[in-house]
Amino acid sequence: MPLVLDYANLTTERLEGVGIPPDVLHHEIADDFRRALATLRAWREEGRLGFLDLPDTPGLADSVRRTVEPWLDEVDDLLIVGIGGSALGAVVLRDALGGVRWNVSARVRAGRPRLHLLDNPDPDSVAGLLADLDPARTAVNVVSKSGSTAETMALHLCVRGWLEEALDPETVRRRLLFTTDPKGGVLRAMAEREGIATLPIPANLGGRFSVLSAVGLVPAAAIGADLDALLAGAARMRTRALADDLRGNPAGLFATLLHTLHVDHGRPIHVLMPYSDRLRSLALWFQQLWAESLGKEGRGPTPLPALGAVDQHAQVQLFMEGPDDKVILFVAADPDADVEVPVPPGAPAELACFRGVTLGRLLDAERRATTEALRLSGRPSATLEVGRIDAGALGELFMMLEVATVLAGALYDVDPLDQPGVEAGKRFTWGLLGRDSFVPPEIPPADPALRTGEPG
Amino acid sequence: MPLVLDYANLTTERLEGVGIPPDVLHHEIADDFRRALATLRAWREEGRLGFLDLPDTPGLADSVRRTVEPWLDEVDDLLIVGIGGSALGAVVLRDALGGVRWNVSARVRAGRPRLHLLDNPDPDSVAGLLADLDPARTAVNVVSKSGSTAETMALHLCVRGWLEEALDPETVRRRLLFTTDPKGGVLRAMAEREGIATLPIPANLGGRFSVLSAVGLVPAAAIGADLDALLAGAARMRTRALADDLRGNPAGLFATLLHTLHVDHGRPIHVLMPYSDRLRSLALWFQQLWAESLGKEGRGPTPLPALGAVDQHAQVQLFMEGPDDKVILFVAADPDADVEVPVPPGAPAELACFRGVTLGRLLDAERRATTEALRLSGRPSATLEVGRIDAGALGELFMMLEVATVLAGALYDVDPLDQPGVEAGKRFTWGLLGRDSFVPPEIPPADPALRTGEPG
Repeated sequence: MPLVLDYANLTTERLEGVGIPPDVLHHEIADDFRRALATLRAWREEGRLGFLDLPDTPGLADSVRRTVEPWLDEVDDLLIVGIGGSALGAVVLRDALGGVRWNVSARVRAGRPRLHLLDNPDPDSVAGLLADLDPARTAVNVVSKSGSTAETMALHLCVRGWLEEALDPETVRRRLLFTTDPKGGVLRAMAEREGIATLPIPANLGGRFSVLSAVGLVPAAAIGADLDALLAGAARMRTRALADDLRGNPAGLFATLLHTLHVDHGRPIHVLMPYSDRLRSLALWFQQLWAESLGKEGRGPTPLPALGAVDQHAQVQLFMEGPDDKVILFVAADPDADVEVPVPPGAPAELACFRGVTLGRLLDAERRATTEALRLSGRPSATLEVGRIDAGALGELFMMLEVATVLAGALYDVDPLDQPGVEAGKRFTWGLLGRDSFVPPEIPPADPALRTGEPG
Repeated sequence: MPLVLDYANLTTERLEGVGIPPDVLHHEIADDFRRALATLRAWREEGRLGFLDLPDTPGLADSVRRTVEPWLDEVDDLLIVGIGGSALGAVVLRDALGGVRWNVSARVRAGRPRLHLLDNPDPDSVAGLLADLDPARTAVNVVSKSGSTAETMALHLCVRGWLEEALDPETVRRRLLFTTDPKGGVLRAMAEREGIATLPIPANLGGRFSVLSAVGLVPAAAIGADLDALLAGAARMRTRALADDLRGNPAGLFATLLHTLHVDHGRPIHVLMPYSDRLRSLALWFQQLWAESLGKEGRGPTPLPALGAVDQHAQVQLFMEGPDDKVILFVAADPDADVEVPVPPGAPAELACFRGVTLGRLLDAERRATTEALRLSGRPSATLEVGRIDAGALGELFMMLEVATVLAGALYDVDPLDQPGVEAGKRFTWGLLGRDSFVPPEIPPADPALRTGEPG
């Protein structure tokens, strides 16, 4: 089924006065949308929106498959070394399509490598992970467009040192794949000098919009996902997301409704809450996309990831009775196979009530009940209906949320494609490490009066 | 080292006018604190704060050890079945002390079972996990105070059915351990009838304050953590956290500073950002504690989990340049063992700059640089310094954040021990499942005009 956005519970008809009046919904907001779409088209004309062209880049899926398949023949584990936009898409694809879940287990499909992410330069994680892996049976995909991301470069050196201690140089070379800029940067230069395989990240593609490039297609191919279906899903959604008719455009509705609920209706916190463990990390991918694209010039919403039904026992109390400053975006999906709750004969009444219930029905009832309880408390929500979680549905979701982010950038009047706020921290890091090419910050000395250790 | 809270970067001296003036810091806030501490003491008198008594409950650690050690002799995997407060503490202990990390691997200490959590009634997760485990080598700890939590009861029946298909009834019985109310509830009744081992959750202990009871001590014992050190750390912190002198009281400072930064200084979003993969799930545990305790009567802050350095490539852009509505609480910790970045001879300049750098130094520099960049942007932050991540440090953190939550409840003038907002959703769930004992909600029919599927 195609992705559906149900937004009835954002309207005054359902929310008794606190939602968006129907006339605003399809008139004022349609004006906002038209302006945002015009801005998007101008940015596209300027060649800034490379992600829109990925679904029909000639030979993209083929080149990834041709590179990845022989490369992974001799390994049991694939390490992705990258951070932020270079890593989160891989995690979404793995969790949604790879049969692996963060909080549950590390099962892999028969014949497919386990997929691990090294994103944080935390020595305990790096030492712990490398101690578990066999360098002779591990492939490494280093992902950095510029090759200058400090965390990724440091982790790359650590992993490479670990490979080189155990293997001859030719085997090390064959185990590496760099996903990086097609022309410049340190990874590109190393690859050319040493004959390491590479795949390109197009020049007009930022990290957080790169999941449908080789950045995400390599891990997708590794877990055996259908790359053609992924790109076809994205292409289908692109048509819908760039259409002028707002009522049929889920990306346009998503962006304009969330924007107006923030700036006109006082709800700056946007909760994405999938009812599916497999889509849990989609909320983290969306958080990065939404926060880094829109949080600038003192503006921008705060995305908040959640997970149903788990967060009914954690965050829903706050959503229901805390300040009315949130919009809840549920994500509904169908499980691959349902599981019936087995009730033994003679079970007490508290358990007998599960007779005939499946886990899938329980989870679905919990989502609908939470939606309804929020509505009756006057709290707005909308639901993205994904259907079956397959490669096509992921392609639709990625493209929809990426187009929505660009439209939201136009609505918030910020540039959704830059991230100026992270540069100062990067410079300071190098300063603190004593590297001369950067100016160290003058950090004020600690004030012992404003620290609490043992009671004085 | 004892836990330290460095809050210099919340003051006007550092933040050029936007922070808390020093006179307010140690006078007005001290008045708030005195009132909150008096309320806490009254609630304690009423017997509502059972978590304060856990560190010196006679025989608590011994009874858990005596139960857990022989029980786990014959297994490779331990499944915790619980949700919310009955599950998150186990995840924190496992990630911090058990050598297992969500985003990295599933390594376990030699001779200790792998620890898995089943919290979500997601059929794909349940089927996937059970397909990976051997019922003959799996123990199951069901955690629910009342025994009436729908998700936990449904998952318990599924896991039990899976055990019963493979094992004789006596072996099934020996594989189960219920952590539940000492007297009432369906789990207690089943345990008594069938001779299943149990451990108690004291009557005056809510789920989100239960990590230092058998709820958290069972998984802690399973991974080989030092239960005595955990409880001793909590006892040390209890003394500091209940002390009248605000300047030496990290729980008091944490609660009063965050409260005033919200209600007097317009910063309702409280970010907890550990710079350590092992403490990533601490931020989720804190989120549940803070949100469910304080989010009521239209009041309460919104806790937002983050992870350093990863979120420097995701959320920090928003923290730095988005709306000034957040306080960032960093958590600094020492790794168990540092890892030097190996730089090969003749490396290009972009990599040679890592010579002599360790991952631990890099991570620490990134945290300090981000703190400083935030300060220069006028964004307030504070830092919890944990030192080495051991059982004692975890005990201190749990107790500090629990006491801070109760104090914050007094400051926000809400009852931090209830969760009325989640009841309607629970009732509606049963209604949707067609169970007569609950009233189904009247859900308005879907409005096709407010759904977007294929373009119309």
